[in-house]
Amino acid sequence: MALNIEVELTKAPKQKPDVSRVGFGTVFTDHMFMLDYEEGRGWHSPRVVPYQSISMDPAAKVFHYGQTVFEGLKAYRTADGRILVFRPDQNFKRLNHSNERMSIPHLDVELALEGLKKLVQTDRDWVPETEGTSLYIRPFIIATEPVLGVAASKRYIFMIIMSPVGAYYAEGIRPVKIHVESEFVRAVPGGTGSAKTAGNYAASLKAQEEAALEGYSQVLWLDGVHKKYVEEVGSMNVFFKVNGKVITPALNGSILKGITRDSMIQLLQSWGVPVEERPVSIEELYEAHRAGTLEEAFGTGTAAVISPVGELNWRGEKLIINGGETGELSAKLYETLTGIQSGKLEDKLGWMVQV
Amino acid sequence: MALNIEVELTKAPKQKPDVSRVGFGTVFTDHMFMLDYEEGRGWHSPRVVPYQSISMDPAAKVFHYGQTVFEGLKAYRTADGRILVFRPDQNFKRLNHSNERMSIPHLDVELALEGLKKLVQTDRDWVPETEGTSLYIRPFIIATEPVLGVAASKRYIFMIIMSPVGAYYAEGIRPVKIHVESEFVRAVPGGTGSAKTAGNYAASLKAQEEAALEGYSQVLWLDGVHKKYVEEVGSMNVFFKVNGKVITPALNGSILKGITRDSMIQLLQSWGVPVEERPVSIEELYEAHRAGTLEEAFGTGTAAVISPVGELNWRGEKLIINGGETGELSAKLYETLTGIQSGKLEDKLGWMVQV
Repeated sequence: MALNIEVELTKAPKQKPDVSRVGFGTVFTDHMFMLDYEEGRGWHSPRVVPYQSISMDPAAKVFHYGQTVFEGLKAYRTADGRILVFRPDQNFKRLNHSNERMSIPHLDVELALEGLKKLVQTDRDWVPETEGTSLYIRPFIIATEPVLGVAASKRYIFMIIMSPVGAYYAEGIRPVKIHVESEFVRAVPGGTGSAKTAGNYAASLKAQEEAALEGYSQVLWLDGVHKKYVEEVGSMNVFFKVNGKVITPALNGSILKGITRDSMIQLLQSWGVPVEERPVSIEELYEAHRAGTLEEAFGTGTAAVISPVGELNWRGEKLIINGGETGELSAKLYETLTGIQSGKLEDKLGWMVQV
Repeated sequence: MALNIEVELTKAPKQKPDVSRVGFGTVFTDHMFMLDYEEGRGWHSPRVVPYQSISMDPAAKVFHYGQTVFEGLKAYRTADGRILVFRPDQNFKRLNHSNERMSIPHLDVELALEGLKKLVQTDRDWVPETEGTSLYIRPFIIATEPVLGVAASKRYIFMIIMSPVGAYYAEGIRPVKIHVESEFVRAVPGGTGSAKTAGNYAASLKAQEEAALEGYSQVLWLDGVHKKYVEEVGSMNVFFKVNGKVITPALNGSILKGITRDSMIQLLQSWGVPVEERPVSIEELYEAHRAGTLEEAFGTGTAAVISPVGELNWRGEKLIINGGETGELSAKLYETLTGIQSGKLEDKLGWMVQV
């Protein structure tokens, strides 16, 4: 496919916000990337256009049957003014994994990367420069065929929109209190848990709301079959440091293959810290805590990079981890990865793509 | 809330199609119903407007997090020209059950019913009159707030769109071949299976595609925990006649509370046929077949009313039910319910609402 991306510039550039004052994903840049798909023709018409509303038939399949996938990644501005994107190839590979599960046609990874670069270049002034800030990038595909039959759509749009975001930890990295979810289930083997698709997030809203009412900022998801094994925390992967070793739930088909997760594992291995990917039961964690060997716990994801867990509450039994403080290893992982992302530390693993 | 529904009539009425030649849900009537929601203001501005595309921000939550619910029901034209809708109050009650699970604000059932009636009245000429035809009605709610944070939306649109549909069985009721799904899972207790929400349907597309490649028209879903108990067939509830009794899976939290399902149970009970709602294992069905007591199997839903099952294939072991023919009870249920719906039979149970 020819990488001929048309660019239509906005005639009405927006005022850029003070990113320290905007909520996550509430303000969008001047432009967006679009690419259309029709059965028989394939993906076509890549273009950068002014950010704008799209016209949708009310019968479009995405509204009724949720046939949609998405990704999330970030661009960072370095002290010397370069713009770096973190592992974008991994996001588009995962998008195709999600497409496979959701019966959406594969996307050409090279074309998607070119579209992403062209869009970031067009809106390069929107990448904020303050410490800890970034430009959040949201690629997504929606099914647009206006037909109510329950079957895969014959038409799609792939889009990329972007939103400048403030520092996740404006007042320093801070551990959160987590409710271990015993009623609601996010995903199950054979379901869509390993795909980044809307339904998984829709399923999570209710549990999140109920946990918030109890003063917990996220839920820890247990597996849907046994309600025994730890899967994810909020919309992040989860890690535990037990007796010097780091353990994280193995990718069992219902857990998202996090790119931050993979990066953390690579960093830990490069430091010689043993990492185990295997089933982790909630009982094992409570036992380790009783034995005094549960040293740290943290979630990993694009938005926060690391979110230390200071407290777990499972069926009313509270467990305080590392005295409710950020652990040493959590802090080191956070400093290292954000250092690489912001260009302050050397990118030994070749993760950053300059735009 | 005042039931003051504004009506804006189309200036360009469409040509009505030959419903015997259109696919399900591909052609829409001249008008649609809309109702807006904003946090702090509630549902407001009920209106009937010309059917048209809607303008959506690309960041609207429905595209990313699938916060959406829907319903499906039908209007029928009687031989004497009246227009009847089948149990619409039940659909809006279920919509609120779905809203509850998906963290969407409740809808006023009376207002929704008024909107439905006003819309059907406005497009009454679109209700087809040939035997077996109907006007399919699709109420749905989508989250429209343009914010990427994973949390319930603060804005929604409720809409009703309508599509004239041909006879489901143009050449007479006909049993289908069903693949018993052992890999993919539709829903699990604690998940969203009992809500009519997009993600459940998105999750089903892949299994349906793979079954179609093997020559099966639908899949029979087993429970996601044990992969042992029968849940639904395609997007229908499922019934079995075993040794004179009718059994159907109990509503366990992962099965949709079908309105056709409920109606069938009421009809059967009114005839004195014993009905059991309880867990039904796939092994029990295979054993009943070996014992010669599996007499009939059928799915129930709005689109087909009854879809007899002529063959099951579980892990390659095929089982032919009633010689692959429509069973006597299946046929009687079909004739009775479609008779009531079309106004040919007396509506003893008070199910039909005249518009």
